[in-house]
This record gives sequence, C-alpha cells and structure tokens, in this order.
Amino acid sequence: MKYAIGVDIGGTSIKYSLVGEDGSIRKKEAIRIDKKITGEETISRLGRALNDYIASLGVKVEGIGVGCPGAINSTTGTCDYSSNLHWNKLPIVVMLKSITGLPIKIANDANVAAFGEYAFGSAKGYKNVVLVTLGTGVGGGLVLDGNLFEGKDGKGAELGHMIIKEGGRECSCGLHGCLEAYASVTALAKATREAMEKHPETKMIDYAVSKGGRIDGRTAFETAKLGDKTAIEVREDYLDHLATGLINLCNIFRPDIILLSGGLSNQKEELTEPLRERLAKVHYGFKRTPEVFVKVASLGDLTGIYGAAALILK
Amino acid sequence: MKYAIGVDIGGTSIKYSLVGEDGSIRKKEAIRIDKKITGEETISRLGRALNDYIASLGVKVEGIGVGCPGAINSTTGTCDYSSNLHWNKLPIVVMLKSITGLPIKIANDANVAAFGEYAFGSAKGYKNVVLVTLGTGVGGGLVLDGNLFEGKDGKGAELGHMIIKEGGRECSCGLHGCLEAYASVTALAKATREAMEKHPETKMIDYAVSKGGRIDGRTAFETAKLGDKTAIEVREDYLDHLATGLINLCNIFRPDIILLSGGLSNQKEELTEPLRERLAKVHYGFKRTPEVFVKVASLGDLTGIYGAAALILK
Repeated sequence: MKYAIGVDIGGTSIKYSLVGEDGSIRKKEAIRIDKKITGEETISRLGRALNDYIASLGVKVEGIGVGCPGAINSTTGTCDYSSNLHWNKLPIVVMLKSITGLPIKIANDANVAAFGEYAFGSAKGYKNVVLVTLGTGVGGGLVLDGNLFEGKDGKGAELGHMIIKEGGRECSCGLHGCLEAYASVTALAKATREAMEKHPETKMIDYAVSKGGRIDGRTAFETAKLGDKTAIEVREDYLDHLATGLINLCNIFRPDIILLSGGLSNQKEELTEPLRERLAKVHYGFKRTPEVFVKVASLGDLTGIYGAAALILK
Repeated sequence: MKYAIGVDIGGTSIKYSLVGEDGSIRKKEAIRIDKKITGEETISRLGRALNDYIASLGVKVEGIGVGCPGAINSTTGTCDYSSNLHWNKLPIVVMLKSITGLPIKIANDANVAAFGEYAFGSAKGYKNVVLVTLGTGVGGGLVLDGNLFEGKDGKGAELGHMIIKEGGRECSCGLHGCLEAYASVTALAKATREAMEKHPETKMIDYAVSKGGRIDGRTAFETAKLGDKTAIEVREDYLDHLATGLINLCNIFRPDIILLSGGLSNQKEELTEPLRERLAKVHYGFKRTPEVFVKVASLGDLTGIYGAAALILK
C-alpha cells in the first residue's frame, strides 16, 4: 500500500499525519506556529519535525502534500501571500523538498479540502465535485473529471467572489453583490445582529445571552428550530441567497455533487434539506438536467490532512 | 500526420471537412437538413455522405468528431433534445459508428467551439479557456487544464444561466437575472428597441431604417460609434452586465483567456476593449490576481468543424 504525509497549515498550528491510500490514518501530530519567527523559520522547523516523524514510522513515504491558506501558487510551490500568517512569497515546496528529500505538492486549503472529500470523504465515487466553504468568507474547491482544478497559478475556484446581485451588498473584496457578502457566516451573523436590533422580541436574544453574548452562524439556525419568526426570516433569507449561488454552480459545472463545508455545515440536514428544496423548485422543474446532490463535507478536522495526502496519493 | 473529420451540425445544414492535426483543412462539404424527414434518417444520410467523402480523400482518417446543438450526452453519444431540430434521444454516435466503422465523438456545439479555439484558434497555447457565445442566447464552453470539461452527462458549461442579478430580468429558462437575460444579442436588441421608443431622436432609428427596419446586436454598437447618446447608453449598459459575468468567470476559473464568440464578437476591439477596462477597474485593482486575457474567437464559420475534429485529434 502507498503512504503519504498530509500537512494542514492552519492559522495557529500545522497538523500532519501519515495517510494510507485505503484512507487509514495515524494519530496526527502538530507544531505550533510562532508568529514571532519568520515564515522561512517556520517551514524549516516543519521540515525537521517531518523528518523526525517519518523516521519514526517504519514505512515508505511516497511524498508530502501540503494544504495552506492564502494565495498559493501550486505551480511554483510558493505561498504568495497569506494575510493571516503574514507570509509573502514563501517557497514552501522548494524548502520542504530540500529538507526532506521527498516529492512535495501544495495547494490552497479550500482546494485541498475538495480533493480530500473526493478521495476519502463525502464525495468519494463522484467525478465532479464542487466544494463551498461557509466560514468567515466563502471559499471554493473544484474537482473536475477527477482532477483538482485550481486555475491559472492556483488562483481559481474563488467561488465566494461570484456576483449574484449586481449593486448588492458590499463585499470585503471591494466588489458588490458577491456570494460571500450573503452566504458567509460573517454575513449571516451580521444579518442576525441587524434583525435582533429591529425585533427585540426575538428569541435569538435569549439564545445569544445563553452563549455569553456571542452572535454567530448558529444563532439564527438554532433559534429558528424553536419556531421564532425573526430567526426563521433570517435563515430563509440566508438560504435564498446561498441557493442562488448553488444554482449558478449547477449550471456552470453540472457537477455530480456540491459539498458544503465550514462552520455552518454543522447544521447538516437543516442546511442541505431546504437548499435541495429550493434547487428542485427553481431549477430542475423547468429543465431536464441531471440531478446534483447537495451534502455536507464529512471529514471534519481531518479534511486538510486527508486532502493534502491525496495530492500525492491520487 | 493525423487526420480527422469534423462535423458541424447546424440549424439548416450539416457541414463537414477533413482536418489535419497541423490545422490544415479541406474545402468543406455540406448536406441540407430536411425537416420533413426524421432525425434517424438525417443521420443515416449523413453517414452515407461521410463514407463517400472519406472514400474520395485517399488519407487515413482517425475518426469523426461531431458538434451538435441542443442537450448532448457526450457519454452515451446521443442528442437528448434539440428544440430547433426536433430531435429527441437521437443515438448519433452509435448510428455513425455503425455506418462508417470509425471512432466517433460528440459534444455540444458551444463546447466544441471552445475546444476548436483551444486547438486551432485564438486560444491556442493556453491551458484554461472559457468561451462565451453571445448569440440568440448566451452559451459557454470550457477547456480546463487542456481538457474539454462538459460536466455530468455533458450538461455543464451553461454559463448563460449564471444569475448575476437576483430578482432581475426574466430569462427564457424561467429564472430571473441570468447573464443571458442581459448579455445575449436578443437582450441587446430588446434594450435597443426600448431605448428607440423612449428616445425618438436617436440615430439608431435611421440606422435601423437603413437596414430595412432590422434591429439587432449591431444597431446600438454601430450607432454608438457616431456618438449617439442613447446608443452609447444602451451599449454601456450591455457591457456593464457582460463585464459582471466575465468577472465571475475570472474568479470561478481564473482562466488564461476568455474568448467571446457569436454574432456580437464581430465588434472585435469595440467589444473587448471596454470589457478589459471594466475588468481592470473593478477587479484587478484590488487583488493581485493573474491577468485573464479577453479576446474574440478567430475561427469564424470553421470553429465547429475545427472543434469537432479536435475531439478526435487532441
């Protein structure tokens, strides 16, 4: 059996583990990201930690896959820019290759997540997979005809910056009406806050108080389950816009499956069921098009490690 | 050198020619589509005509590629549905294979056009190509990482049915706010007609009269060149919406190149220059993303034949 190391670079730590082509996985290890040292020093530390880890394994490792946040050029193997990590033109692949002597591949974290779900998760067995991450922003990953599609210099699949409403809400990117401005958890929390101000009778206030004042993606969804009118309105409006984005992705790609990941995907059927209903109503009703499944991602915390390892194994 | 036959099925005739892998092409031949006979009979006639044609060539033919309008299932090789030709579940590939004994491939005409431009036209040398046809509707074709991407059962790349304005203009598909409802030649002609009614002083009226009363995609573009205010407004509004669609395609795919084809692409630089300006202003200004070229398709009438042959040759 073939084995690879999957490396998942996050905002505060770098997790890694050995993954077998059958989906078996060892206990994951991690190093903390010390923001006081440079990106180069961080990658050097990672390389040495990986060497120690690999030496302890006693199996042949085919290579190391890396998922990294930010703007990744998968051709040159560099992290061009990561606002969170303050990395700039960091030659991750060249450095790790020189330290470990192994083949190294890298991709953006959302792309890696899509590939992980395709290789080992909810999208296993499907050829065309569109992954939409609903988090602070809205990210995307594409597996098309069984291959990870990243676009020019790894800069494609920015599905959150698809305009669904010309002249609509301002997006963090400077455009107006992007899917991200409606379907991110940030956008949902903002809409929740606005609705709470307008409707002081809503049970969302009790819910937020019970969570220490925290208003997030759960506030509207959880309170809507209690039948609260305002919460239901916020949720329905959120789902309407998200459904528009999914309709677009259906028509653009006609994938086998759309996977939702990120914080809000914890809502599972509460998220996917109403989306399926909307898709069936506005789209499939009028045109004989092959069905697109809508599911949530299944690998959870391990998506990044699985997907990174899959860059080598698939 | 390898040779294939490219077959371009249109609304009234079927054109075909021998194409060499170097892009050389013989004089094209054609048979008329007789709407009084069935689709099966039409394909039988085509098969016999191709046999005669191939026998006359004196070169080895690798196979026959077919571009066909309507809903094509490239996996099963059938034309599932063509409203224009009144074809239904027509097994084109099976029939042509049995008549000619050669390998046959088929794809939707817009997909074939994208592949033709990639293999032999304006997009030669680029790996990621998005083609947008601006005609009666708005169609799309995708070449991603050098492969024709068609989506599940060949039903993807419906780029015209990407919603750019929720709650916007009604589209022929039943949705609201699709790119097609703003950027098709049909939509442009409609906007032109409405502007002429509102502004009887516009020179577009003289232009239309000089064309025997015909109002089409040229009316606003040609009259705008004379400095006519109303025509300029119609053109600018058209370009604004089309630019929104192209921004989305840039972010979704980050292709090397977007190609515009169809009737309106005859405007060449008059179409691409203002689009490039819009893209540069609203998109590239704020994010360091690799440039996407915007050009018009170059193969004209031969796109279909070239692209169909490329299905075999590439």
